[in-house]
Amino acid sequence: MLDPFAARYRQDLFESVIPFWMKHSLDREHGGYFTCLDRDGSVFDDRKYMWLNGRQVWMFSRLYNSVEKRPEWLDAARLGADFLRRHARDAQGRCYFALTRDGRPAAFQRKPYGAVFIMLGWLEYSRASGEEWARREAVDLFWSVRRWIADPGLLGRLSLAGAPVFSQLADIMVQISMALELAAVDPDPRYPEILRELYTAAMRHLDPERQVLLENVSPDGTPWTELPEGRLVSPGHVTEVCWFLLHLLEIVPDAGRVDDVLCILEASLDFGWDREYGGLLYFVDTNGRPPLQLEASMKLWWPHTEAIYALVLAHTITKDVKWLEWLRIVDEYTYRTFPDPEHGEWFGYCDRAGKPTHLLKGNNYKGCFHVPRALLFSVQRIEAMR
Amino acid sequence: MLDPFAARYRQDLFESVIPFWMKHSLDREHGGYFTCLDRDGSVFDDRKYMWLNGRQVWMFSRLYNSVEKRPEWLDAARLGADFLRRHARDAQGRCYFALTRDGRPAAFQRKPYGAVFIMLGWLEYSRASGEEWARREAVDLFWSVRRWIADPGLLGRLSLAGAPVFSQLADIMVQISMALELAAVDPDPRYPEILRELYTAAMRHLDPERQVLLENVSPDGTPWTELPEGRLVSPGHVTEVCWFLLHLLEIVPDAGRVDDVLCILEASLDFGWDREYGGLLYFVDTNGRPPLQLEASMKLWWPHTEAIYALVLAHTITKDVKWLEWLRIVDEYTYRTFPDPEHGEWFGYCDRAGKPTHLLKGNNYKGCFHVPRALLFSVQRIEAMR
Repeated sequence: MLDPFAARYRQDLFESVIPFWMKHSLDREHGGYFTCLDRDGSVFDDRKYMWLNGRQVWMFSRLYNSVEKRPEWLDAARLGADFLRRHARDAQGRCYFALTRDGRPAAFQRKPYGAVFIMLGWLEYSRASGEEWARREAVDLFWSVRRWIADPGLLGRLSLAGAPVFSQLADIMVQISMALELAAVDPDPRYPEILRELYTAAMRHLDPERQVLLENVSPDGTPWTELPEGRLVSPGHVTEVCWFLLHLLEIVPDAGRVDDVLCILEASLDFGWDREYGGLLYFVDTNGRPPLQLEASMKLWWPHTEAIYALVLAHTITKDVKWLEWLRIVDEYTYRTFPDPEHGEWFGYCDRAGKPTHLLKGNNYKGCFHVPRALLFSVQRIEAMR
Repeated sequence: MLDPFAARYRQDLFESVIPFWMKHSLDREHGGYFTCLDRDGSVFDDRKYMWLNGRQVWMFSRLYNSVEKRPEWLDAARLGADFLRRHARDAQGRCYFALTRDGRPAAFQRKPYGAVFIMLGWLEYSRASGEEWARREAVDLFWSVRRWIADPGLLGRLSLAGAPVFSQLADIMVQISMALELAAVDPDPRYPEILRELYTAAMRHLDPERQVLLENVSPDGTPWTELPEGRLVSPGHVTEVCWFLLHLLEIVPDAGRVDDVLCILEASLDFGWDREYGGLLYFVDTNGRPPLQLEASMKLWWPHTEAIYALVLAHTITKDVKWLEWLRIVDEYTYRTFPDPEHGEWFGYCDRAGKPTHLLKGNNYKGCFHVPRALLFSVQRIEAMR
């Protein structure tokens, strides 16, 4: 029953999305990738954004490793991997947020996420190219990210007496994403152990009343409902965490229960779906208070790509028709709202009613990642079940 | 011809806006002001935000100083001024961004703006209360802000080899705002001299083609059109700068020319007005490229309050009917879109079509400031011209 979805996703991926990035984002002069691409692919900011450069290395390497050994994909991956190797890190090994086109540091974020995506890029690239440095640097970076999350002071973050200390769902998810990829290529028993811990840590974010995962809870899991951060739910983010947890349970089955994850997935869609206009709201306050984020009621592309793959996964695991019904709803909204038939790829940002607020295809946070990853994973999952 | 506007603004100010903040924002237990207020005034985040606490001290002190010596206004101002004196600064005299309800540091921004608004609050409060400490601390803070703007490293900002170095319009405007208030109460000849320099600095932001002020230019005024920051215009911000420049020219007439400022005001409205839905767009790229800000096409309250007062000022100075025509357009859109007749005060955030995206009255950036300041200044200006 999922075959028609796979056919459409395959076509979108290989005829629209990947060609768009291959054509417009590669910087053959300085290396790395442009990601600030306007509707037609023209560059409107030539800085190199590290989240997105790392992600694109990962994407092209994964295509090469899991679809077909096309030399142009390996070549495109190398263009980013080498650029990052030369320029991405400061003297202490921390990763910048943005570089100039030619690789000089332009911005630093006191967050670990740039390093996360560079780590993922290098690890996948090492499998594609066989280059040992990339694997070694990726493993090093994984352990550095663990240290930076445990002690944000290492990234230059201030510690203030009255600042709330949260367990952040994003920190848990990115660690799962890295440990899953490491566990797939390395028998080191620490990775499954870490994955077990991370599963437990993610479940501490469960809001018992709504069965969704909160973005921020106290380190012991106590909800922190007095503050907006403690009431914050990003429904699309929860669907992404759900599919990571389902992957985790395939590698470490004793870490938890598939049914518990599926219960969260369903609750996140129920809670986050906009009954008036369709689509997943970007941020919702559990108590119906106004979120501080101005973009809260906007519709962004990535919550929808993550929901699609989570639903594909849920259906292939359970065969339960309810996931197919949700997939039809999410897929119909998504394909009506985001893809650009004229120039390829997807728009990323719409208002609550689904009208694009920006016609760009990429910026400092949207690149060659969520769309092609979800399409590729969905196609591969559906085809593997045939 | 402006009298009907004054009557309406007076009523809005004294019957809706000020009562809302008097009723809901004063923290009688710990001092300071709540600003995260939902539609009905209920507190949804009890942290104290320093920009807004400083601004509210200024607002209540200004009401006391320039409208009527109501004890409750002085009392409300003191509640914030004393709280800020006890808690707002770190050991190096830098101001936090947010405190817990009881005054412990909760967030620090590596920007000078918290200090700017605390400085303005204390200075105006010193005139209301006669308390010398407040005047002294305000003057000290003015000079500190000047140093922090000249050397952002003092606020902990990193200096990166590839980071663009901009002259920022906001930095110029906040210095004008402080120096104007100091020049009004202190004969020190440095203030008019600084105002002359700041006028010249602001004019370096002129985009010669569109006659608007760019948010960011090279320090020598060269446009930096390769980067989104260098192409960024915030039309409402330009109108705010314009009225500050008109005030400046009343204090220091030889600093520049009123006609040059009025030309920019008209251009900013022409350039920023949304011909499709009405209202001022929040951010526009001069070259029609997509802004990086997700909220670019939203309609926010404060660009409209600032435009209203700028137009009142332009009309009272010139008597030119074109300003009255613009005022009618902006006022009609604004009063159709933002005020909340049910609970008082104004909504702050709407989508491009003018529908509220948030029903809150205040948050970490909206407080008791833009609405009452513009209404008060407009009323006073119109009534002074009778």
